[in-house]
Amino acid sequence: MTTHTNTWFYYLLFILFSLVNIPIEAQDAQGEKPNFIIIFADDLGYGDLSSYGHPSIKTPYLDRMAEEGQKWTNFYVAASVCTPSRAAILTGRLPVRSGMASSKRRVLFPDSKGGLPASEITLAEHLKSAGYNTACIGKWHLGHKDAFLPTTHGFDYYFGIPYSNDMDRTSQLPYREYLMQADEKIKTEDFNVPLYRNTEIIERPVNQNTITKRYSEETINYIKEHKKSPFFVYLAHNLPHVPLFVSEEYKGKSARGLYGDIIEEIDAGVGDIMNFLEEEGLAENTILVFTSDNGPWLTFKEKGGSAGLLRAGKGTTWEGGMREPALFWGPGTIKPGLRHDLGSSMDLFVTFSKMAGLEVPTDREMDGVDISGTLLNGNPSTRKSILYYRGTEIYAVRIGKYKAHYITQGEYGEFGKREEHEPPILYNLDTDPSEQFELTGDYTDVLNEFDLILEQHNAKLVKGKDQLVERE
Amino acid sequence: MTTHTNTWFYYLLFILFSLVNIPIEAQDAQGEKPNFIIIFADDLGYGDLSSYGHPSIKTPYLDRMAEEGQKWTNFYVAASVCTPSRAAILTGRLPVRSGMASSKRRVLFPDSKGGLPASEITLAEHLKSAGYNTACIGKWHLGHKDAFLPTTHGFDYYFGIPYSNDMDRTSQLPYREYLMQADEKIKTEDFNVPLYRNTEIIERPVNQNTITKRYSEETINYIKEHKKSPFFVYLAHNLPHVPLFVSEEYKGKSARGLYGDIIEEIDAGVGDIMNFLEEEGLAENTILVFTSDNGPWLTFKEKGGSAGLLRAGKGTTWEGGMREPALFWGPGTIKPGLRHDLGSSMDLFVTFSKMAGLEVPTDREMDGVDISGTLLNGNPSTRKSILYYRGTEIYAVRIGKYKAHYITQGEYGEFGKREEHEPPILYNLDTDPSEQFELTGDYTDVLNEFDLILEQHNAKLVKGKDQLVERE
Repeated sequence: MTTHTNTWFYYLLFILFSLVNIPIEAQDAQGEKPNFIIIFADDLGYGDLSSYGHPSIKTPYLDRMAEEGQKWTNFYVAASVCTPSRAAILTGRLPVRSGMASSKRRVLFPDSKGGLPASEITLAEHLKSAGYNTACIGKWHLGHKDAFLPTTHGFDYYFGIPYSNDMDRTSQLPYREYLMQADEKIKTEDFNVPLYRNTEIIERPVNQNTITKRYSEETINYIKEHKKSPFFVYLAHNLPHVPLFVSEEYKGKSARGLYGDIIEEIDAGVGDIMNFLEEEGLAENTILVFTSDNGPWLTFKEKGGSAGLLRAGKGTTWEGGMREPALFWGPGTIKPGLRHDLGSSMDLFVTFSKMAGLEVPTDREMDGVDISGTLLNGNPSTRKSILYYRGTEIYAVRIGKYKAHYITQGEYGEFGKREEHEPPILYNLDTDPSEQFELTGDYTDVLNEFDLILEQHNAKLVKGKDQLVERE
Repeated sequence: MTTHTNTWFYYLLFILFSLVNIPIEAQDAQGEKPNFIIIFADDLGYGDLSSYGHPSIKTPYLDRMAEEGQKWTNFYVAASVCTPSRAAILTGRLPVRSGMASSKRRVLFPDSKGGLPASEITLAEHLKSAGYNTACIGKWHLGHKDAFLPTTHGFDYYFGIPYSNDMDRTSQLPYREYLMQADEKIKTEDFNVPLYRNTEIIERPVNQNTITKRYSEETINYIKEHKKSPFFVYLAHNLPHVPLFVSEEYKGKSARGLYGDIIEEIDAGVGDIMNFLEEEGLAENTILVFTSDNGPWLTFKEKGGSAGLLRAGKGTTWEGGMREPALFWGPGTIKPGLRHDLGSSMDLFVTFSKMAGLEVPTDREMDGVDISGTLLNGNPSTRKSILYYRGTEIYAVRIGKYKAHYITQGEYGEFGKREEHEPPILYNLDTDPSEQFELTGDYTDVLNEFDLILEQHNAKLVKGKDQLVERE
């Protein structure tokens, strides 16, 4: 009889736990602070995922994020090139404020002396003050001198390449000529980039063929070791930035060719992370974000990605340069749905700080807004406008559906013709997402709103000292 | 005790039926023949659904079809304009064979005398021979003279407009000038198009504001009355072809403007049909297909749709003209998944005939292939090539990933410059879906394959008598 009762008791217990589906251990240990994982691709375009319309790339796990979570279609980064975009996502501030945008140089190079100033507060640093474990896995590109490495900016752990994978090139061929060769001719050993663990170089040149896989694995290992307390992992893939490399397992897997192979390897890593979170009972208390630093590098043709129906790509302030896929996943946390709301990578700092019970810093201008109402409850986004900076200048502004181009310029390299527009060129991005049909007629009221936004912004703007310009 | 046993018995029965989830009545009445519903939009582009990447149009029900069913990304129609594309989907044959493609006129007009010849066998006619109830709801455009109406071609029931919604125009303004006016100036009464029920005109001019909604309702009503035996419904919306009209309920609903309102009203109709099928226990025995007749009419700017990342649109043999969204839904029948396989609207005739237990006609050349292995079991598609006809000429051919353009020409109207290419321009559509990067180098083997396909095709081709050219 006792045995029988015990069996029923355990059976009942099993059913109850199956229903709530949250292992008690994890829940207890973490309290109410959610974990955050930001996966940041490099040069991946708006049109490069199947859920964003690509016809020959398969991204089942990213599509699953879209189906079970939120898929945003008007989500922006703060710059159309690496360094400033990365400064912005980690600080919640426009890169012009931190000096991580420059009028002289687009990004940091191996000969650069500067980096993200110590006075800047990164999301990692901020979350640490609330007891988070923090890791940066992947591309940093905010300063590779000792004073600027991730470990100086609030990350407990760093594993990755401190800048772009096309740097430290040892081939004597001109840059573009080298990279435009057949895929077989591009060798990982021709890029003498270092791989760091914390502050030590552990491999040089990095074997870039395996780097995507290793980044995903490092992420899972870090979480495995730190799952008992809240964690923040910033997983910034070096790819699909040129040169393109992929592991043997994924080579030739995608119909899209090498570029697609890489996206599919990144996607598989996302799937591994999702599965791991679910197996460990962490999924309900973790917010997983996927986006990219800027649009596709179109001048590299099939070696670059696709902005889908958006105009132009990396390096420009057209939509293709700065609008990115953005997926938010957290079963039971993120309210599933398609979101046409405006959002920015800079909103993550403010939103995640709030969700971790932290105030945002009040001693500086913040450019992010709290979008947790949208993520958790499906409320309309609190973001109303987007500033499109190129270097240290505003080229365009979006307010609601309207976008005004004050300056237009093609991609850097061969298409860089700059044109100023007074009055600005106006588009309705909701009815004309491809920026094809310039609005004519009387838009005085709309233009007045733009003037006001710009006036308010410029009145409070203090440009940081240019961190990109100094060379060794 | 008896009561108790009865309760348990019914409880068990309930659980069993819940598990198999097929209402017995429907299953019994229909035997094993599946029902078919083809929803065919007009001028809807590859990029116009949210599941195909549109950033400001919401299509939750079509997206649900994509998630729960199959989403095809390389699915083609047989012509880039209305009449020939419609002849092809209903006969499973290239329109050049039936005379429904012409070198003189693109489509049928109200002054046309011709139509789909009686000798052609439509899918409706064929399925009727297996006991199907058949209805055509919507745009016909295969002949509006009595001899050519849907009821002469195997459809038991017809409700719809027999040609395009921009015809029978009563305004004296030039066509394009009229249509490019502000939306408020375009009036449904300026198009004196008739609405038929079977062979009678019941309304003229049609109130186009409510026509989309009425088509969806007619579909549901028809199924309601014929659910006891297998049915085939061909629901061919007249919209979003210009002029654009929408019901009051959907006006202003979409951020995309009037064009988006219409897509969202069509989507809602798809949702109503899906919900109805589920409520009636018909979903498991019905295959629902959604696609469109040709690409977006780009010369109408924001009044036309988007081909997403594909090149050009309606009227051309670039991908944007002939590649369409294609969704297949049937819970428990269609094997869910993203399909990069080649498919054609002409395959539906052969595939559905086979699924209904019918042989395909052997007295004529059929251009469709059986894709049921892909739909039901997820096998690779049996289709290996696509012919891109414009009028009665082959402009391009796709074999696997390669597409060869023999002739290129822009949209009709102002962009119609025709160029012949010898050797043909070659693209790899898997790595370059936007047809941007012409392949150079030695593709002799590939070109030989193209020669062979064309030789085989032309050897057996008997062009039908031009049905579009004769006017009253």
